[in-house]
Amino acid sequence: MVISIAHLGPAGTYAETAALASVQWLTQGDAILCPYPSIAQTLIAAADQKVQYAVVPVENSIEGSVTMTLDNLWQLDNLRIQRALVIPISHALLSHADRLEGIRAVYSHPQALAQCQKWLDKFLPTAQLIAANSTTEALQHLGEDRTIAAISSHRAAQLYNLPILASPINDYPDNCTRFLVLSLKPSPGGTHTSIAFGMSANQPGMLVKPLQVFAQRNINLTRIESRPTRRTPGTYHFFLDLQADARESLIQSALEELTHYTETLKMFGSYDIVAID
Amino acid sequence: MVISIAHLGPAGTYAETAALASVQWLTQGDAILCPYPSIAQTLIAAADQKVQYAVVPVENSIEGSVTMTLDNLWQLDNLRIQRALVIPISHALLSHADRLEGIRAVYSHPQALAQCQKWLDKFLPTAQLIAANSTTEALQHLGEDRTIAAISSHRAAQLYNLPILASPINDYPDNCTRFLVLSLKPSPGGTHTSIAFGMSANQPGMLVKPLQVFAQRNINLTRIESRPTRRTPGTYHFFLDLQADARESLIQSALEELTHYTETLKMFGSYDIVAID
Repeated sequence: MVISIAHLGPAGTYAETAALASVQWLTQGDAILCPYPSIAQTLIAAADQKVQYAVVPVENSIEGSVTMTLDNLWQLDNLRIQRALVIPISHALLSHADRLEGIRAVYSHPQALAQCQKWLDKFLPTAQLIAANSTTEALQHLGEDRTIAAISSHRAAQLYNLPILASPINDYPDNCTRFLVLSLKPSPGGTHTSIAFGMSANQPGMLVKPLQVFAQRNINLTRIESRPTRRTPGTYHFFLDLQADARESLIQSALEELTHYTETLKMFGSYDIVAID
Repeated sequence: MVISIAHLGPAGTYAETAALASVQWLTQGDAILCPYPSIAQTLIAAADQKVQYAVVPVENSIEGSVTMTLDNLWQLDNLRIQRALVIPISHALLSHADRLEGIRAVYSHPQALAQCQKWLDKFLPTAQLIAANSTTEALQHLGEDRTIAAISSHRAAQLYNLPILASPINDYPDNCTRFLVLSLKPSPGGTHTSIAFGMSANQPGMLVKPLQVFAQRNINLTRIESRPTRRTPGTYHFFLDLQADARESLIQSALEELTHYTETLKMFGSYDIVAID
């Protein structure tokens, strides 16, 4: 069977690397990779059944949450996580220039610019930093112009036959991004479960009761993230990752109890996390 | 007495508005406002005693945490919060152009670009979005060029006598940013206390014990934020805002108990939050 996978494109993004890494697990047949211009459109493609799977970044080890993904997942609550992939990130500066002097603008995805911030401050302090929709889209601005550079992957440099002027340029060597493979299918189960919830009021110990539900059962919480509701300032949605499988009766009872304390509870499913070399 | 206040500059930023709003409270004499090119440099100026106060944004009601501020506060642990100010944010598109057609680039601070993302997607879908160090620094790129626009405040438009092409352009009308006034002085006490902590290991219920410390004493938690430690992927620093004054014995006992569960505990002080019209 041929499956279709949406990812942030064009070809050569880290999201495409994650999509390629997930193919083997998703199908024994062929896969068509479908690049989309934004994370929102990538997720909507899967939610609207234009593709079977969407692969999106959810957290970088240095810059933290990809807020665009969390905010969109909250709204598109029909998608379920099939698997998480941890991809090592090594950024390169691509340019037709022979040296750094003379480069006046650097294009890339805002997350990539942030992950190379110290390097840019040191070596290109006066260059303009220009947001692109993806690390690969940034390459379209290079043209033949020797005053322009882009931050992208080594894979993209090969794919588009572009020279690497400096590499690696990320500020922290231990830089990796966790990607989610999502689909309308029920999640397969696995070592981790992702949920999100909103609460009606800001009361003393508000967040303690939901967390106690898991602590009392010895369920490990590997991550908690808050995002503004965008309705009332000072109110948040909370995103939780649990080290547990939602098919176990222990966690089912926890999730059942959790509904007593939350206004809205969203289940994104249970899945395995796989590290890719 | 003349006091000096560092803020993200040049003049006309929302941070300057917050700095101006804090003058009356900080001194009965005069104040010198000192614009700095980045949030990091603003904070370091106060930490190094080049100025007495620093005013920095910490959270926007739509885009969430200003991660640059949290990450720098963690490192500069000698600064104490004197007061928090909530400033309403209303963004305008400034340009010498007569109409939106023909605008090919929009400059602004990444937070401002993010807060106007839907508007930009709708009205300027092909324009390049270029990161500036501040909303006012963005204006330096306008020149006389009618193909360039910048997102900035109404105050900046007046200050630099620049035409407003569209306003307000923020995606959510209820957009406000919380700023912190920081100094090396002990914090004055007040309704809220900010702390941050790191933990040594990722154990079941890791975060529950710290939160229980406050819940058991009926101390309200108004905010929790996690940031990657940048050492080991999957490990975080947690930033907490408590509705309590650290001078009270109740919260002192809580903070004392908290040290049993944390590896590093940072106190940013107790202060009042004031909303500015």
